[in-house]
Amino acid sequence: MFFEGSEKKFELSVVAGVSSLREIPRAIYDECVEKSEAQILSVVSSDQCDAYLLSESSLFVWDDRITMITCGNTKLCHAALFIIDHLGQDNVESFFYERKNEYYPRKQSSDFFDDVECLSKKINGTAYRLGQPNQHHLYLFHGNKKYEPPKSDRTIELLMYGLSGEANEIFSKPNNNSQSIREFLNLENAFPGFKFDDYVFSPVGYSCNAVKGSDYYTIHVTPQDEGPYVSFETNVKGMTAKSVVESVTNIFKPSCFDIIQFDSGQLEDIQFAGPRKLNAVKDKIGGYNVLFKSYYNHSEDYKKADKLKL
Amino acid sequence: MFFEGSEKKFELSVVAGVSSLREIPRAIYDECVEKSEAQILSVVSSDQCDAYLLSESSLFVWDDRITMITCGNTKLCHAALFIIDHLGQDNVESFFYERKNEYYPRKQSSDFFDDVECLSKKINGTAYRLGQPNQHHLYLFHGNKKYEPPKSDRTIELLMYGLSGEANEIFSKPNNNSQSIREFLNLENAFPGFKFDDYVFSPVGYSCNAVKGSDYYTIHVTPQDEGPYVSFETNVKGMTAKSVVESVTNIFKPSCFDIIQFDSGQLEDIQFAGPRKLNAVKDKIGGYNVLFKSYYNHSEDYKKADKLKL
Repeated sequence: MFFEGSEKKFELSVVAGVSSLREIPRAIYDECVEKSEAQILSVVSSDQCDAYLLSESSLFVWDDRITMITCGNTKLCHAALFIIDHLGQDNVESFFYERKNEYYPRKQSSDFFDDVECLSKKINGTAYRLGQPNQHHLYLFHGNKKYEPPKSDRTIELLMYGLSGEANEIFSKPNNNSQSIREFLNLENAFPGFKFDDYVFSPVGYSCNAVKGSDYYTIHVTPQDEGPYVSFETNVKGMTAKSVVESVTNIFKPSCFDIIQFDSGQLEDIQFAGPRKLNAVKDKIGGYNVLFKSYYNHSEDYKKADKLKL
Repeated sequence: MFFEGSEKKFELSVVAGVSSLREIPRAIYDECVEKSEAQILSVVSSDQCDAYLLSESSLFVWDDRITMITCGNTKLCHAALFIIDHLGQDNVESFFYERKNEYYPRKQSSDFFDDVECLSKKINGTAYRLGQPNQHHLYLFHGNKKYEPPKSDRTIELLMYGLSGEANEIFSKPNNNSQSIREFLNLENAFPGFKFDDYVFSPVGYSCNAVKGSDYYTIHVTPQDEGPYVSFETNVKGMTAKSVVESVTNIFKPSCFDIIQFDSGQLEDIQFAGPRKLNAVKDKIGGYNVLFKSYYNHSEDYKKADKLKL
């Protein structure tokens, strides 16, 4: 029953003069997603962005940019190579590939180094690890083509481990309905005015995409006991990173969480009163200021050992 | 150049009436160690214990008890099955198997669940995980035969991640000599009166065993950049667990460390002024009081990303 919630992600932008990525036929995106061994389930659009909900996470398409995120045992680099081929290598301006640490790396069909080997067929790039390999960490690969990201280009990724309280109850209930989940999340409160699309997986699991102009957010919930995980990601403008993170951690109440921030300008380095910072990595990578931080909620309580099913 | 320092371990005791395990011919222990795909390098003995230094860690043999620890990509459960067969299943009183979380689980030939499947051919047992699977954790399997450990039976295992300062310099220096390493460690100071045996691996890596009566300690150093790791383990009497742990962490100055304690009686629950406790698991398992705790040294500093060789 284990499902790896931890994600792989690529983002690419195209050079000026390439026709809108939103005009590429749907069949191409279907094929792109199939290359990763996922499927498109549904789509919701704003005036500037198409948000595809996938059987394993999400695909966002803007006029000049694509972000694709997949979890489970998907082969995202195959999707990346397919879309780079479709666009033509020279038309790709920037390319970033991320891979987060997994709960069960042995159950994956590749590791980050395998993925980079695959991507290097098309992209001449540089690779980094943010964080120590025995703690939470992020692997990052980016194309070496010189790239200056747009002003006010900011992404916040929030990776949450363990769910507690009401979130755990709601998401652990088999075949729960979308309506009760939406009411619990109450996302319109924190992120008003977004067009919203969601999917409840059977027996458990939940995904949603939301778009407003060029802004998006996306949530993927993997409540399985063997590796409870929730990811949130957004490029929303007009909110501090701190208010974004606090809104979401207040919903899911994770036992620990990682924050990844990309900012073309000055980073907002969030400070928390409650959670303790385990480690922090800050660097300038591929034209962005990048910050990776790991937090946990301290408790003096002793846990019991988990008895394992054999 | 990566070498997985993180260990697997088994410990077994025999029922009363079985002849001394120290009288089993050396060829049997050679074969036992070879089953794990390691070799015996040397041996040092006290009046009560034979301590074999292995190409991957250590084997200790007492009259009624065996402890074997192996790192790298060894197959310790094959060695365990071999020795159980040699002794006869009914002569095995207690059996414990441990596996610590690894830096690179994908490079291992098995995981804990595979090992338990293998061990279950001979041992009807129960399995636990101490700690969350996304943080440092310990897997533990033990035989279900009712077992009351001897009084004052205490083991302290200390798993250290990252070396800093002088320890890092000494152990990162290729083909360093035993003499300068011994002088640096100055173990006679913390643990006086032990008979000592050590081995310097090429280009890097260091192991030592030491025995005094029924007491032992052992250290294994894997300084490689991709996964710097040091393990220490002892059953030494007449010292508090706190003084043992502080003596050793003062030598290696790890960035984080885990402590595993087994005690047949009351556990000494160490408190530290400096390092921060990340999590703690306490339980009664297989007749022992067991404590697993993770610590890290807090720093407000931001690290840089690690650029990876491709």
